[in-house]
Amino acid sequence: MASRRFAGYQFFNLTVPSQHVIHVEINRPQKLNAFYGPMWFELKDIFAKLSVDSEIRCIILSGAGDRAFTAGLDVEDAAKPDNTISASGFADPSRKATVLRRHIVELQEAISTVARCEKPVVALMHGYAYGLGIDLSSACDIRFCTADTKFCVKEVDIGLAADVGTLSRLPKVVGGVTSWVKEVCLSARPFSAQEAQHNNFVSRVVAGGKAELMQEGLDFANYLASKSPVAVQGTKNILDAAWGRTVEDNLNYTAVWNQAMLQSTDVQRAILSGLQKKSPTFEKL
Amino acid sequence: MASRRFAGYQFFNLTVPSQHVIHVEINRPQKLNAFYGPMWFELKDIFAKLSVDSEIRCIILSGAGDRAFTAGLDVEDAAKPDNTISASGFADPSRKATVLRRHIVELQEAISTVARCEKPVVALMHGYAYGLGIDLSSACDIRFCTADTKFCVKEVDIGLAADVGTLSRLPKVVGGVTSWVKEVCLSARPFSAQEAQHNNFVSRVVAGGKAELMQEGLDFANYLASKSPVAVQGTKNILDAAWGRTVEDNLNYTAVWNQAMLQSTDVQRAILSGLQKKSPTFEKL
Amino acid sequence: MASRRFAGYQFFNLTVPSQHVIHVEINRPQKLNAFYGPMWFELKDIFAKLSVDSEIRCIILSGAGDRAFTAGLDVEDAAKPDNTISASGFADPSRKATVLRRHIVELQEAISTVARCEKPVVALMHGYAYGLGIDLSSACDIRFCTADTKFCVKEVDIGLAADVGTLSRLPKVVGGVTSWVKEVCLSARPFSAQEAQHNNFVSRVVAGGKAELMQEGLDFANYLASKSPVAVQGTKNILDAAWGRTVEDNLNYTAVWNQAMLQSTDVQRAILSGLQKKSPTFEKL
Amino acid sequence: MASRRFAGYQFFNLTVPSQHVIHVEINRPQKLNAFYGPMWFELKDIFAKLSVDSEIRCIILSGAGDRAFTAGLDVEDAAKPDNTISASGFADPSRKATVLRRHIVELQEAISTVARCEKPVVALMHGYAYGLGIDLSSACDIRFCTADTKFCVKEVDIGLAADVGTLSRLPKVVGGVTSWVKEVCLSARPFSAQEAQHNNFVSRVVAGGKAELMQEGLDFANYLASKSPVAVQGTKNILDAAWGRTVEDNLNYTAVWNQAMLQSTDVQRAILSGLQKKSPTFEKL
Amino acid sequence: MASRRFAGYQFFNLTVPSQHVIHVEINRPQKLNAFYGPMWFELKDIFAKLSVDSEIRCIILSGAGDRAFTAGLDVEDAAKPDNTISASGFADPSRKATVLRRHIVELQEAISTVARCEKPVVALMHGYAYGLGIDLSSACDIRFCTADTKFCVKEVDIGLAADVGTLSRLPKVVGGVTSWVKEVCLSARPFSAQEAQHNNFVSRVVAGGKAELMQEGLDFANYLASKSPVAVQGTKNILDAAWGRTVEDNLNYTAVWNQAMLQSTDVQRAILSGLQKKSPTFEKL
Amino acid sequence: MASRRFAGYQFFNLTVPSQHVIHVEINRPQKLNAFYGPMWFELKDIFAKLSVDSEIRCIILSGAGDRAFTAGLDVEDAAKPDNTISASGFADPSRKATVLRRHIVELQEAISTVARCEKPVVALMHGYAYGLGIDLSSACDIRFCTADTKFCVKEVDIGLAADVGTLSRLPKVVGGVTSWVKEVCLSARPFSAQEAQHNNFVSRVVAGGKAELMQEGLDFANYLASKSPVAVQGTKNILDAAWGRTVEDNLNYTAVWNQAMLQSTDVQRAILSGLQKKSPTFEKL
Repeated sequence: MASRRFAGYQFFNLTVPSQHVIHVEINRPQKLNAFYGPMWFELKDIFAKLSVDSEIRCIILSGAGDRAFTAGLDVEDAAKPDNTISASGFADPSRKATVLRRHIVELQEAISTVARCEKPVVALMHGYAYGLGIDLSSACDIRFCTADTKFCVKEVDIGLAADVGTLSRLPKVVGGVTSWVKEVCLSARPFSAQEAQHNNFVSRVVAGGKAELMQEGLDFANYLASKSPVAVQGTKNILDAAWGRTVEDNLNYTAVWNQAMLQSTDVQRAILSGLQKKSPTFEKL
Repeated sequence: MASRRFAGYQFFNLTVPSQHVIHVEINRPQKLNAFYGPMWFELKDIFAKLSVDSEIRCIILSGAGDRAFTAGLDVEDAAKPDNTISASGFADPSRKATVLRRHIVELQEAISTVARCEKPVVALMHGYAYGLGIDLSSACDIRFCTADTKFCVKEVDIGLAADVGTLSRLPKVVGGVTSWVKEVCLSARPFSAQEAQHNNFVSRVVAGGKAELMQEGLDFANYLASKSPVAVQGTKNILDAAWGRTVEDNLNYTAVWNQAMLQSTDVQRAILSGLQKKSPTFEKL
Repeated sequence: MASRRFAGYQFFNLTVPSQHVIHVEINRPQKLNAFYGPMWFELKDIFAKLSVDSEIRCIILSGAGDRAFTAGLDVEDAAKPDNTISASGFADPSRKATVLRRHIVELQEAISTVARCEKPVVALMHGYAYGLGIDLSSACDIRFCTADTKFCVKEVDIGLAADVGTLSRLPKVVGGVTSWVKEVCLSARPFSAQEAQHNNFVSRVVAGGKAELMQEGLDFANYLASKSPVAVQGTKNILDAAWGRTVEDNLNYTAVWNQAMLQSTDVQRAILSGLQKKSPTFEKL
Repeated sequence: MASRRFAGYQFFNLTVPSQHVIHVEINRPQKLNAFYGPMWFELKDIFAKLSVDSEIRCIILSGAGDRAFTAGLDVEDAAKPDNTISASGFADPSRKATVLRRHIVELQEAISTVARCEKPVVALMHGYAYGLGIDLSSACDIRFCTADTKFCVKEVDIGLAADVGTLSRLPKVVGGVTSWVKEVCLSARPFSAQEAQHNNFVSRVVAGGKAELMQEGLDFANYLASKSPVAVQGTKNILDAAWGRTVEDNLNYTAVWNQAMLQSTDVQRAILSGLQKKSPTFEKL
Repeated sequence: MASRRFAGYQFFNLTVPSQHVIHVEINRPQKLNAFYGPMWFELKDIFAKLSVDSEIRCIILSGAGDRAFTAGLDVEDAAKPDNTISASGFADPSRKATVLRRHIVELQEAISTVARCEKPVVALMHGYAYGLGIDLSSACDIRFCTADTKFCVKEVDIGLAADVGTLSRLPKVVGGVTSWVKEVCLSARPFSAQEAQHNNFVSRVVAGGKAELMQEGLDFANYLASKSPVAVQGTKNILDAAWGRTVEDNLNYTAVWNQAMLQSTDVQRAILSGLQKKSPTFEKL
Repeated sequence: MASRRFAGYQFFNLTVPSQHVIHVEINRPQKLNAFYGPMWFELKDIFAKLSVDSEIRCIILSGAGDRAFTAGLDVEDAAKPDNTISASGFADPSRKATVLRRHIVELQEAISTVARCEKPVVALMHGYAYGLGIDLSSACDIRFCTADTKFCVKEVDIGLAADVGTLSRLPKVVGGVTSWVKEVCLSARPFSAQEAQHNNFVSRVVAGGKAELMQEGLDFANYLASKSPVAVQGTKNILDAAWGRTVEDNLNYTAVWNQAMLQSTDVQRAILSGLQKKSPTFEKL
């Protein structure tokens, strides 16, 4: 079911497959869903809005078409003469540097808007998930994929260190700067769904094709959406606050968070429903 | 062998199965070892004492009965009208918040007393290890379980974000905020022993039943207890200091720790015993 | 091909098996490549030089002989009466502590020189990789091993907490302070190649013997050496900066790093070569 | 000189008193420049634009009229029934909490936009600088005031802990959580310009009235604007990165920053001008 | 007015000079209020209780008698043969180290209980404030003194680095590791009230003698006690969280704190009273 | 008294004016003690050696001649064509960046060697203390100066952000990123001894000329040298560890440090001497 509320994006389809769940689909299949200029702004705008949309409890993110989640940056577009790098118009390296830094931060902000989204985001990947596909899915909370997904931290192959999120978030989402993280990031060699699962990048490799992946993703999203949104979104917030901080810090943060949230009517509803073996319903958040 | 020194607890059995090893058993089997009020204080008191007991070199922690390590919080008790949340007696949310925060910190402190215990603690889990069972075992150093153990980060199901330690310690003990951590914490879906091992939560799934688990746990505890307590307890201290800190920070901390500890007579004894192929004995610590 | 530039070390062989790749071989096979006094200084000196050697793009590190990567510290040497610990000549524990701390920091610095090396370092391990073998390989970026490698965090067996890097770097390179990390570090029990791979310490267990390992390591090194050194070495720098820091911190660091590095001619060369399906060549770095 | 580029704001006057310097004036003098709803958005928008405006090298910020820099939050407006707090429309404290948190973060973001502005910002204060006046000027780089300025961390007087920046930034800008910081923040007692200078909140108390303050502020801004913008803005960036971080961290950050910025043509120009005793000119940034 | 609730301490007098204010007096004047064994436990117990006493809104802390706030550690007692250091009964330095560390942590915990007290604590110092007097008053929020107070970071004179708080808290409460902090901490030279004020250790030097100090301290405490306790105690909590953390971290913490606290009825009461020029009253906290 | 042990430096005079005290004099007075190439290596070498010299307990650092502590970087030398910046020989900005970063880190390391020196270092400044003079003296523990000393954070005037330490250490040693720190660092305006003292950069402005300064510095150094070196050097180590860390972190670090150091014979000697009103002597460290 398409919703008028979510219309108006050129490169993303937004649909509402079931109550409280929204499906964000990257929609540039003829280019393997590769990203260029205007798509970044749409991405940021979408997730900024969904973050505070009180009807939404879970977001699933996938790529349109049969061939790719996303092939990453649109390199042909990036190679055009009017691109930021080439077109900076400054001979002086320090001024070029300033233009470049502002540009990187702008792209990082788009990806960080996904990571900061208050609602849980589940990436459902198939086909190519290259370059930016890793940056983007690393900013999601949960990652599922089909068995034939091909992953690659591709940036070294275009002469640069990945700079919009992969190097900062991959150690967080697979656990540490492991031998495998270094191997795939330094070499830009592709890796399979099985390897992605063994190394904790995805938590499920769904048997079958894209249709089965989408169904399993939707089922999981519905399951999340049936839970207390106060509990689910609070859990996301606290888990994200854990990285790069000591346990003591995070325990205190958790207590401060919950001094408000334990006053929720959701707690009584959930406990009562549990004792009565009923399904609770929760107010919007 | 029960020891008089460790008698007097209502909800925990403390026994000394072999030299330098103590067995702490959660003992409320008729309620699946679920926790309520007074048990928290006993737990804190026990681990505060064991931490500085110079006879003890390793602690094993398990649940009494056939059915559970612990089913978690005693929800029926939590639902009673005189519970902290319901009974705070304040209409004003800021004052309720203060009462709740103090209460959370108090419970966190009980679990943190396990985590701060100077001696290594091995959790031996069977049956249900739900909710608080994850908080508690995440505060232990090492986790073994039987093949039929059922785990669940249950808190979302009672309308709240887990607040006495799981969200702070699980990323530390499995390595990062992985897709799987988010999946099980946001959804409160149960997971198996096999899944717990694949995702590095437990390091051993013991074949057989609870008896085999207890034996393997005891064998391992005896093995630890045969080593230099200065070396073992120092290793625990330094490893725990590593999380949330840079490598450089921790290297310096390690050097400062060992400027005292390398003066130990254990070093000479251990090296000499090694060269002579003998078993060393070490003074109490 | 041996290079005169890299001659003159007593305990290490340095050879250049292919362009931009250097092979550092620990060369004291009669003692299972165990370390003692002068070797530390050579190790530090070698990696300090290679770090800024513009001809080098990848380093492989292995142990000479059939039996060991390294058996660790030369305990017989450490037990001699003129060793730092025994020979400190101070009765006063605070003065002994100062001598010990300076000594530990000196050894840590040797290992940290490997970790800080600007070029990627691949450890290729066979036979014994005990004690210092873990400290040393944890400071490398990537770890491969043969199927019959035997690992051990051995320090507890000589009465001390590992202090030259293992306890600080192992949680970083396997992801967190897992049950398994605590198990092997507290107990000093040996573990196999398979266990090392399951727990993300090595990313490849190479079938066959040492020869096959060396070949696969060299192939991988050649692959890395064919990539843009600006991209590869930048990726290493940023990934290492991620540990113990928040994602936001590291994103900003990445942007500041790349404000200079995106001005590299490597970017144009790599993109152009990609579009033309050619192999790019890059200037030395 | 008013500039068309900077027209169109209802509550702020933007003028360009001299080359590379812009004057931002809070312009609601009939209400002592107190802030309410729409002003926050204008503030954020202005500083987001100035941050990347290549013509601007220094910003001075003051309040219109004779009586106040700003009296702070417009409390009468905040007391209206349609205000966020009162009008949240939720009975459930956890949902109210979510609405409030989002609102606080939005206001914090407006102030943080001033703090993150790439150009140096000099606050010129006279009359009342109460409540928000401290939050706002703490986000500036440099603070001057007239001798009769009256300061107050007013928030405790309206029943809350200051939440849009004062408590986070005041310890940074006066140096630590001193006895004086606690005294004025806990008590909400007003303090004088002299006290502000003794405690390092302002670096200059200008003799005379508002006119003299504005002139001294403009002279200083012109002085800053005559320097290399690469050097000035880099210095601001690095100094701000120092707080809450170790010296080692910041040294590394500084080296990474300057690996790009030392390639600036400003360095040659500045050195050459210095040797030739001439005034250098610098390209826009 | 002495309160029965606060009776029963041997070394501290607790009185309630006015509503919501409690006076804690160190009461061993014949020994210049020097600390030894049992006093630490009383100190910890008192502040743990006051922290959560809903009748108390401000604490003033002073020393009994004319001569001293406190002369610090009772060195004669520390020199006795049954003292922890001398009496550890271990020849082995690593075991002695363990006993010493536990002892230090225990004393640190007593001082930290003062620092963690939820209510604001004002230290009122006269005469000698030596050694422990600095540790203890640094853990208070606000420090006033008479003009003839003599301060000294005395520990170097007894052969040790201050270890129960001064070296950790002094840089926080005076702002950084200034030249003066190093000068007085490394040399153990005494310093005057004037020097303490110039260097931001005390915020007021009260003219007159101890009586005037006590009156000014009580007036200030009454002033604090008239404010919203939700606002005052929240301000303390957030300011203390600022040290050693980035501004961004603390802003987020502040927002999470206030999502609960802005729901306080104190906000409406305070704002309304302000508009009506009345004195508000607030519920206990 | 010149000591043979300390001979052999071209740009520094090392003398031993009294027992346990060494005087390091920057000795290039004809160039106002400005720094260029070889001086950095000597500086690093000197402080690395003094750090572990067991005869030395305090270091005083000053500039030769009447006119300057140091005028900073030798700009004429820096402007020569064979300087690192000009002579990097790379057209590619990313490769230039790498050369520059390595060079900055090398210079930072020289200054950091002063900061990491285990012995206390007192900077005695007169005349010009410009640019590098601030970097260098900020790395010392304590700063005294004559009344006519002229200070300047000069780097902005040569087109760059100070990169060898000032921006990282000045906020630490004056307390925070105050309005004054920003004012003098962004503008490169000179400041006086009085201003340096008001803003806590120096702790003493000595009346009279250079001779009086040197005498007061030496008196203070002798005073420090009479104290327990275990206590003095431990105090320095712990204070330096406090910056950028939480109080809790540093308290734990302090306890771990003192578990070794409290075993010092200095403690007994110092306490006993204190009780007997005698002057203690301490073993070398």
